[in-house]
Amino acid sequence: MSIVEFKLDPWSHVMIKDYEKLFQYFGIRPFNEVINKLKSVAEPHYLMRRGIIFGHRDFDRVVDAIIRGERFAVVTGLMPSGKMHFGHKMVIDQVIYYQRLDAEIYLVIADIEAYNVRRISRDDAINIALRDYVANYIALGLDKKNLHLYFQSNYKIKYYRLIQLIPRKLTLAELRAAYGEDIDVGKVISVITQIADILHPQLKDLGGFKHIVVPVGPDQDPHIRLTRDVAQRFNDELGLTPPSSTYHRFMSGLDGGKMSSSRPESYISLNEDPATAVQKLMKAFTGGRATAEEQKKLGGEPEKCVVYEFYAYHLIPDDEELRRAYLDCKLGNVLCGECKLKAAELLTKYLIQHNDRYEKALPKVSEYVEMPDF
Amino acid sequence: MSIVEFKLDPWSHVMIKDYEKLFQYFGIRPFNEVINKLKSVAEPHYLMRRGIIFGHRDFDRVVDAIIRGERFAVVTGLMPSGKMHFGHKMVIDQVIYYQRLDAEIYLVIADIEAYNVRRISRDDAINIALRDYVANYIALGLDKKNLHLYFQSNYKIKYYRLIQLIPRKLTLAELRAAYGEDIDVGKVISVITQIADILHPQLKDLGGFKHIVVPVGPDQDPHIRLTRDVAQRFNDELGLTPPSSTYHRFMSGLDGGKMSSSRPESYISLNEDPATAVQKLMKAFTGGRATAEEQKKLGGEPEKCVVYEFYAYHLIPDDEELRRAYLDCKLGNVLCGECKLKAAELLTKYLIQHNDRYEKALPKVSEYVEMPDF
Repeated sequence: MSIVEFKLDPWSHVMIKDYEKLFQYFGIRPFNEVINKLKSVAEPHYLMRRGIIFGHRDFDRVVDAIIRGERFAVVTGLMPSGKMHFGHKMVIDQVIYYQRLDAEIYLVIADIEAYNVRRISRDDAINIALRDYVANYIALGLDKKNLHLYFQSNYKIKYYRLIQLIPRKLTLAELRAAYGEDIDVGKVISVITQIADILHPQLKDLGGFKHIVVPVGPDQDPHIRLTRDVAQRFNDELGLTPPSSTYHRFMSGLDGGKMSSSRPESYISLNEDPATAVQKLMKAFTGGRATAEEQKKLGGEPEKCVVYEFYAYHLIPDDEELRRAYLDCKLGNVLCGECKLKAAELLTKYLIQHNDRYEKALPKVSEYVEMPDF
Repeated sequence: MSIVEFKLDPWSHVMIKDYEKLFQYFGIRPFNEVINKLKSVAEPHYLMRRGIIFGHRDFDRVVDAIIRGERFAVVTGLMPSGKMHFGHKMVIDQVIYYQRLDAEIYLVIADIEAYNVRRISRDDAINIALRDYVANYIALGLDKKNLHLYFQSNYKIKYYRLIQLIPRKLTLAELRAAYGEDIDVGKVISVITQIADILHPQLKDLGGFKHIVVPVGPDQDPHIRLTRDVAQRFNDELGLTPPSSTYHRFMSGLDGGKMSSSRPESYISLNEDPATAVQKLMKAFTGGRATAEEQKKLGGEPEKCVVYEFYAYHLIPDDEELRRAYLDCKLGNVLCGECKLKAAELLTKYLIQHNDRYEKALPKVSEYVEMPDF
């Protein structure tokens, strides 16, 4: 790929390599197939424009719904475990994008999965959900409009009924194929519950048919496939139809590994104090060369750079500015030290501003979600 | 056993043989251990006096509760599949007995198990539950007092929450040990739901601690054991305690096999038309000898006789009268033909009277149970 060709999607070639199997064997389609159609009705989100959202299943149906002004819904969830970090932010950014396009939003707090699979106490799960996630969501711009934000443990009876009916349409062999041989009872109930999370907005008594899109990482695709199968099997009986899905790249961990809530050195939390955040960023893995000399000559490798990811995913919303940062690195004009200082400045500004919004959001949490008692 | 020794418990010696393993290896205790203590506060039910209820786990705790005037509850369920027959009647007879001793009654309609495991449609399950079971229960004397009669698909949120929490306390290996290797997702959800059926009356928000007794057949003991284990594991977290249980003999099928809803030739339904019922009874397997001559000499074998079971379980509530019927058979005074005619007369009378009560009960069903919509 020459620099001239670069169109805000520095991962397109890497991606094809990484996710080739998804396209080839599992039927996920490239997102760029639908982006022009989406443009006819709405400006695509920068995560879409930049190829961070790279794949989909039946997202064209959702675009058609938007074009025709039909109802559609976004379903996603949060696992109340650990801190909310920048890797989590992507999904809620998408939710807010769709909410502004008049989507109904179904946001499930997976407290039951946290309890059964992560073995987190109910109290902890509830507190983490509210303080570490919901308050951040509100700070990021989540609105009360068309919002269904609920705990799995505290919701509507028709939802629980759907959870109970789903087992008829599934075999344990299918669950083992999707989640591994050592699946246990807690995981079984979590899977069934997640399927109900995705499908229940289509139930007759909960508003009836609407297009549904679930934004996920590619690791969640087995779950999407299973959910689509179950929907199909309920088509006659309950009028359910398969949900659409989109797939986004994951941010890399700061240390070059996976970004994970269980390793604080791998992520920056949205509620990190700026000094710690900057310290973590300065230590982060980059796409720099061995020496300054070499980098000036060969240019950096933003495609492999965690700092560049922070720009592209979060810190630089303006496409032209991002393009400049990319080229400055690629052409060897800006070396890692200077680049990190700039990122630190943007990050500090972001965190301070976010913290301000977070403090205002915190007392409002109970307006967004019904609190479960024990 | 000599005839002189006979104390209304013709099965005591057979039983010890049949159920020896239950006592010896599984820790079920003989019911006669607790019957005297029960007598101090209430007349034992004839099913208890006659050894039809033959075993228990911790039933002494329930008796203590009755003696001290503490709250206690009976939990049982019905599978809305096929007709309600005389084999089913035993359990509801016990429920009504406890209800008159001021027990709270939890009666669950297992429509979700019917849907998932028996593959009965929701509509059918609801209709069968109401017409074939609940209306018969009312006709048999079930009262609205302290009654919680509910569909698994249409109940309280705290109940659903308990269903969701239970998987943390169970492994799939335990379920396989109790229910077989080929357990599937529908069975997993049914088991978890049944455990919640038994334990939920103790939840803090549903009235808090009370002694619970579950009257079951011995085939249900693996489920009781599992439920007791789960209760123990929730002791700290939710304050749950193991339920007590009692065990009753099953009626034999009319044809000598198992009495089963799936084989109409094996049972007489409570709503059978009397002519058909009598026809079935006249064909039934008895404890008679090969010839009248022989029977006059050796006497019959009421312990092996389906007609005698009908007397003992249902048709002869008076102990002295039952004793006479037993002796008349045993001494060869009454042969099978005569005995069956008497049984047919009692059965006809019973069914006509029951049908009359059933017709009156049918329109009242909705006062006893909240009807689920789909």
